[in-house]
Amino acid sequence: MAKEKKLVEAITSMEEDFAQWYTDVVKKAELIDYSSVKGCMVIKPAGYAIWENIQKELDARFKAVGVENVYMPMFIPESLLEKEKDHVEGFAPEVAWVTYGGLNPLQERLCVRPTSETLFCDFYAKDIQSYRDLPKVYNQWCSVVRWEKETRPFLRSREFLWQEGHTAHATAQEAEERTELMLNEYARFCEEVLAIPVVKGRKTDKEKFAGAEATYTIEALMHDGKALQSGTSHNFGDGFAKAFGIQFTDKDNKLKYVHQTSWGVSTRMIGGIIMVHGDDSGLVLPPRIAPTQVMVIPIAQHKSGVLDKANELKNELAAKFRVKLDDSDKGPGFKFAEQEMRGIPVRIEIGPKDIEAGHAIIVRRDTREKIIADLNEISVKVAEVLDTMQKEMLERARAHREAHTFEARTYEEFKDIVANKPGFIKAMWCGDEACELKIKEDTTATSRCMPFEQEELSNVCVCCGKPAKTMVYWGKAY
Amino acid sequence: MAKEKKLVEAITSMEEDFAQWYTDVVKKAELIDYSSVKGCMVIKPAGYAIWENIQKELDARFKAVGVENVYMPMFIPESLLEKEKDHVEGFAPEVAWVTYGGLNPLQERLCVRPTSETLFCDFYAKDIQSYRDLPKVYNQWCSVVRWEKETRPFLRSREFLWQEGHTAHATAQEAEERTELMLNEYARFCEEVLAIPVVKGRKTDKEKFAGAEATYTIEALMHDGKALQSGTSHNFGDGFAKAFGIQFTDKDNKLKYVHQTSWGVSTRMIGGIIMVHGDDSGLVLPPRIAPTQVMVIPIAQHKSGVLDKANELKNELAAKFRVKLDDSDKGPGFKFAEQEMRGIPVRIEIGPKDIEAGHAIIVRRDTREKIIADLNEISVKVAEVLDTMQKEMLERARAHREAHTFEARTYEEFKDIVANKPGFIKAMWCGDEACELKIKEDTTATSRCMPFEQEELSNVCVCCGKPAKTMVYWGKAY
Repeated sequence: MAKEKKLVEAITSMEEDFAQWYTDVVKKAELIDYSSVKGCMVIKPAGYAIWENIQKELDARFKAVGVENVYMPMFIPESLLEKEKDHVEGFAPEVAWVTYGGLNPLQERLCVRPTSETLFCDFYAKDIQSYRDLPKVYNQWCSVVRWEKETRPFLRSREFLWQEGHTAHATAQEAEERTELMLNEYARFCEEVLAIPVVKGRKTDKEKFAGAEATYTIEALMHDGKALQSGTSHNFGDGFAKAFGIQFTDKDNKLKYVHQTSWGVSTRMIGGIIMVHGDDSGLVLPPRIAPTQVMVIPIAQHKSGVLDKANELKNELAAKFRVKLDDSDKGPGFKFAEQEMRGIPVRIEIGPKDIEAGHAIIVRRDTREKIIADLNEISVKVAEVLDTMQKEMLERARAHREAHTFEARTYEEFKDIVANKPGFIKAMWCGDEACELKIKEDTTATSRCMPFEQEELSNVCVCCGKPAKTMVYWGKAY
Repeated sequence: MAKEKKLVEAITSMEEDFAQWYTDVVKKAELIDYSSVKGCMVIKPAGYAIWENIQKELDARFKAVGVENVYMPMFIPESLLEKEKDHVEGFAPEVAWVTYGGLNPLQERLCVRPTSETLFCDFYAKDIQSYRDLPKVYNQWCSVVRWEKETRPFLRSREFLWQEGHTAHATAQEAEERTELMLNEYARFCEEVLAIPVVKGRKTDKEKFAGAEATYTIEALMHDGKALQSGTSHNFGDGFAKAFGIQFTDKDNKLKYVHQTSWGVSTRMIGGIIMVHGDDSGLVLPPRIAPTQVMVIPIAQHKSGVLDKANELKNELAAKFRVKLDDSDKGPGFKFAEQEMRGIPVRIEIGPKDIEAGHAIIVRRDTREKIIADLNEISVKVAEVLDTMQKEMLERARAHREAHTFEARTYEEFKDIVANKPGFIKAMWCGDEACELKIKEDTTATSRCMPFEQEELSNVCVCCGKPAKTMVYWGKAY
């Protein structure tokens, strides 16, 4: 019992200190460990398995919309990084530089990719000649490096895992369509699989990607009212094509520049899952992404027949679910606490009395609801519970977001909300970067996006009072 | 027709120049392209899809024997790399060094992982306390960097993709069992999936991994008679554990060092597939690993009904096979040449006459055999052809290896074989490194392995004539 207490006590409560709660959960749920390499983490089996499921699910969705996977080198020669002016300015200050190969200094230093636009462009410039070579819809799953000063597991680390799609198209329209298509894929994935509702919109010029003509984003609201940029899709127009000379001969026999896009999501999404769904007992994983969906926990397992029955149950469920049996020599209370800490969506308790009664007890991780299920129909029941849980987790996250989305019509209102009500703020904006900067300085809130679903809250900018151009979601962000 | 010719002419024949043939195939089959980063390649969709299939198949096999995936940082601090003496000597001369993070020089330089023993050991030293924490059977899929001077696509490049398993065990026996288990998994995978027969054996001390107690290897024979080390499994004993202080409290309450293993295969395997199965028309992919197994090629596709029927056929086959339809505006001859170049196991030709007759023609890539198949039973027929092809490719590779495996009882014989008969040479060895060095200097052949299946060809060393300890497979190697 001392041990059980220790496990539970180990987590700071969310209300008390959300940042500490987050750190406790990633450690105690055994998602990551810190490494000897400052700012880089070790992703442990429980954490990596979530990433594997994200990859598997997203990769299938990508392939269904024509994406092909490739692999580019992890190094970028300095001269290549410098080819696109905005891009190098955006990334050069935060890259890691390789200066020695073996015992010899390199003639030209190489950066470890912070993102691979330049490598894809260099490749496309050679590989694309004719309209017949288009479109190119390539993606890679890899790790990238950005030399961040402040790091937090999953949210901001010097190395992180991601996918980066890079496409080239014959027309501006096709590039725009691909940019939107991929953003929609991300949004659907977040809602359907991660049970995270997102706001889709466009970044302001200040917040857009270095080198992009337009950046689209999905923004999610965390439990503490902060925003998490969860995926982005960029339309590059022909800017990179001109910098890298990516031209093709079109059907009309004219030489034209391609139009490009890029889009990516990362292990950051795991941070989002934790901060949207977690509670004071630890992680809560949506059933569709959970590496283990069901944990069978025998009660009084030393008693004759219990372990056999628990094993039988596990094997039966394994045909339809990702299921494990905890037959370790720990006490049931400790096993419950562990299963809860790790966010396993349901546990099934089964002891001598249950076996006698011909049932088992299904316990939902999110609501703690206990459902007594007949052993004859347990598989159907588990499927129902997991489906319901998946659906209700999304609904709950949506309700939380709606309860924490505010409207500000005056600057006083805006400042009051930022100071007192954590969440998204919808407010009108004139389109001037000066107002964005002022709002950030006054409140630390930043523009999250100009949502595709616009509303006209008023006709003046919340900051300067000049005519408004667009409604913006504002918020403090990770 | 000019274009068709160009495509076919583009490949040098194997007999004429095997190295050039290899380079032509990797380029013309669109597996890779060279990049602006010297010694690093771009893996294109056709190449990466092979790697994805290798990953998928191997990963499932790993998981079935208890392997869990994790992710370690890509950087290793210099002090960490230096902890195990043999290991640092083996790798330090060929690593890439990061010396700057953003605009600032690093206090300690970091190498880009050439392999991750040191990172796993550093992690295990913290993570393992009790026998309850054992065994650890972790693996990661990642890229590694070795600053090679001479590079060749898939066979030797500065960056390559691989998996590296790293395990920790309570006993020496368990570590030895895991080392052998993984080698056997690799061997089975090569034979069952890649249709590549391998010799399993142990490396001599000279050839073993830097820091290992024993290295086991699978060695395959390429079409040109050279050997390819295709996968290795290392038993570290407790050497790394002592260097890194990885100790656990055992059931008897005593503090003990763990015993460790590591094992890996890489994109090198793709080089093996090319060099074992390819021919003068290009790549030949074993059906089980081929990203596209069947290419449907319509004949006279402008004629009414042909494309519809070809599409119907494709859709029917898609339920059971990885199938594509080539309905581009190229001529059939060009399509055949392309399908052959890319190594797609079978093509199905279907034209107006075939449709009238209610059949289609299945053409095997390896033998060019044409099989007329009734459209009503085409799916069954394709399955048969692919199965037979997979089986016969392995048999052919095994026959080729047997025909190119020689025995040498005297040093004259040995030298004559190396000079005139490309292949493996079986010969007895005294166990002395001096003989290995002399053989290498005299003939350029190296010891490939001491096979598990030993034979006693004579009782004296083929080189020095002293009493022999073991039979060794020798050969020139990639």
